[in-house]
Amino acid sequence: MTRWLDGPAIDDDVVISTRVRVARNISKYRFPSIMTVQESDTLTDEILNGMKEALDDNYRFIRVRDITPREQMVYIEDHLISPNMVQRKDKSSFLIRNDEKATVMINEEDHIRIQTLFPGFNLTDAWELCSDIDDKLGEKLDYAFDDRWGYLTACPTNVGTGLRASVMLHLPCITITKTINSLIEGLREIGLTVRGLYGEGSEALGYLYQISNQVTLGESEEDIIGKLNKVVYQIIKRERKTREYLKEKKSTELENRVYRSYGILSYARIITSKEAMDHLSNIRLGWEVGIFSSDKIRNIFDLMIEVQPANIQRGLDKDMSEEDRDIERAKIIRDYIYNLEG
Amino acid sequence: MTRWLDGPAIDDDVVISTRVRVARNISKYRFPSIMTVQESDTLTDEILNGMKEALDDNYRFIRVRDITPREQMVYIEDHLISPNMVQRKDKSSFLIRNDEKATVMINEEDHIRIQTLFPGFNLTDAWELCSDIDDKLGEKLDYAFDDRWGYLTACPTNVGTGLRASVMLHLPCITITKTINSLIEGLREIGLTVRGLYGEGSEALGYLYQISNQVTLGESEEDIIGKLNKVVYQIIKRERKTREYLKEKKSTELENRVYRSYGILSYARIITSKEAMDHLSNIRLGWEVGIFSSDKIRNIFDLMIEVQPANIQRGLDKDMSEEDRDIERAKIIRDYIYNLEG
Repeated sequence: MTRWLDGPAIDDDVVISTRVRVARNISKYRFPSIMTVQESDTLTDEILNGMKEALDDNYRFIRVRDITPREQMVYIEDHLISPNMVQRKDKSSFLIRNDEKATVMINEEDHIRIQTLFPGFNLTDAWELCSDIDDKLGEKLDYAFDDRWGYLTACPTNVGTGLRASVMLHLPCITITKTINSLIEGLREIGLTVRGLYGEGSEALGYLYQISNQVTLGESEEDIIGKLNKVVYQIIKRERKTREYLKEKKSTELENRVYRSYGILSYARIITSKEAMDHLSNIRLGWEVGIFSSDKIRNIFDLMIEVQPANIQRGLDKDMSEEDRDIERAKIIRDYIYNLEG
Repeated sequence: MTRWLDGPAIDDDVVISTRVRVARNISKYRFPSIMTVQESDTLTDEILNGMKEALDDNYRFIRVRDITPREQMVYIEDHLISPNMVQRKDKSSFLIRNDEKATVMINEEDHIRIQTLFPGFNLTDAWELCSDIDDKLGEKLDYAFDDRWGYLTACPTNVGTGLRASVMLHLPCITITKTINSLIEGLREIGLTVRGLYGEGSEALGYLYQISNQVTLGESEEDIIGKLNKVVYQIIKRERKTREYLKEKKSTELENRVYRSYGILSYARIITSKEAMDHLSNIRLGWEVGIFSSDKIRNIFDLMIEVQPANIQRGLDKDMSEEDRDIERAKIIRDYIYNLEG
């Protein structure tokens, strides 16, 4: 369903996805938050012209104001655009590559945000593609760049490289054994940030954590990517080690946790998005520790997106009340669980 | 398993069981709480002599101090003796009829507590049997009786008739619709008490409520029984009416509640006694509203007793840690649920 999740994925027993984005702005234009809609339209045309030459025709262009609120939410739930885009929807638009692995957002917090998304742990490809798009656009557009400060951005936290690389990890064992908090503290101390599934301010859902660099200034792109790469490898090793420990020492507790979620998802008639995430996460844990063998569970993150509110409504092509969504969500998940056994 | 639950049961879609007990004391002896063990042994012999003549040989005699703590707990969990008996176990003993529908406790709070227990709603038989045993013992023993106050008891709340009649109801629908609290308040206003599964101070578990008379003085036995009878009939009607309302108006919510418990009990590997009670209660609710048709569920209260801590240990004939009991309990319940489908 979610196209960017397609394809081979490395270390995907722990890492769900890898994302890289750079923030860029065009000289002589005001930042998106204070520009008028008219200025924004002029800027959008200029960027589009530059892109047309720079990018191949594998991209489609979408103005946020031209699509329905439900469609806007689907793009957000699919991680293809940020909630910021909807907040200034009169000015924002985006180009999206057909395989959805690359999005160029126009008038998000900055004039341009180039985002690349890959399944599994793949900072190399994600950075390479992002950097490639950036280079091509940079040739056509007059990026706001200062020799001393680097790329100028709307928020000072992005000045410099404008780069944020992030990795989404599924860390059930580190979470269950309650070592996650000291891990998060340790990451903060070395300049990394930990967030929930839907970015800034979102709480951890279903053992999913996004780890990203906090610093964009004073370090090269390669240093930022390299450091994140190294740290994530350590976390992957730690999750796997904790997994072995739990399998050996706490097998009944593990089975209890996993099978209870299996039982609830097999039978629930009403389920909220948050509760579904938690139980689906336990199903994935069951696959990670070998309780379940169906390889369909490898891609359960796809289902986690599919049962988000806007995705459910897109599936039935109608607006639904929260109550009806909770009923439909339970149905989708029951079908999924039922088909696991087949 | 629990013998007193055997036999035909009236209105057992709402009423689990009916219990009647009278408190009696023997003149010239001090109350159990302050008598010595020696005095207690003398009194016990006197009572036993009287009982031998009064009661047939369908009774077995047990001194609480002669049985293991685990066996003591089994009798309590089975509702055959009260926790009070174990607290003064050097002095307490009991006679129990083979069908377990009658127990005569010696040196509980009073010298004698005659208890009768019947499945379903059956105040008539419970009172008749209790009164019959009481009459026979009264002929042989010198009951402490005052013309003005009636039967004298250790606690003034039992003075007069010494009678407490109680009915255990399963009230899921009244509970779910949150009308239970106003019901409880109303009952208190007319001199009735509402308690949880294991009597005084115990919280309501699994939608189970014990309703009993508070007043023992100034009303005849027949009035006490008659009033409780009338009120319980009204509650039965109300539960049934609420059940029809939920079936018609909230069928998805009902199914969600019932099937979630079914899913958890089908798959849990570890479960506490309290959680098991709640989910088993939902299974019974499922039978009451017609989601499940297996008539085995009618007697699920038997399983509720069987999965209490001491009963589980008796089943395996060994002492177990709480952790091991929680694992064994989950296993017993999984087997039960599995066999429902067969």
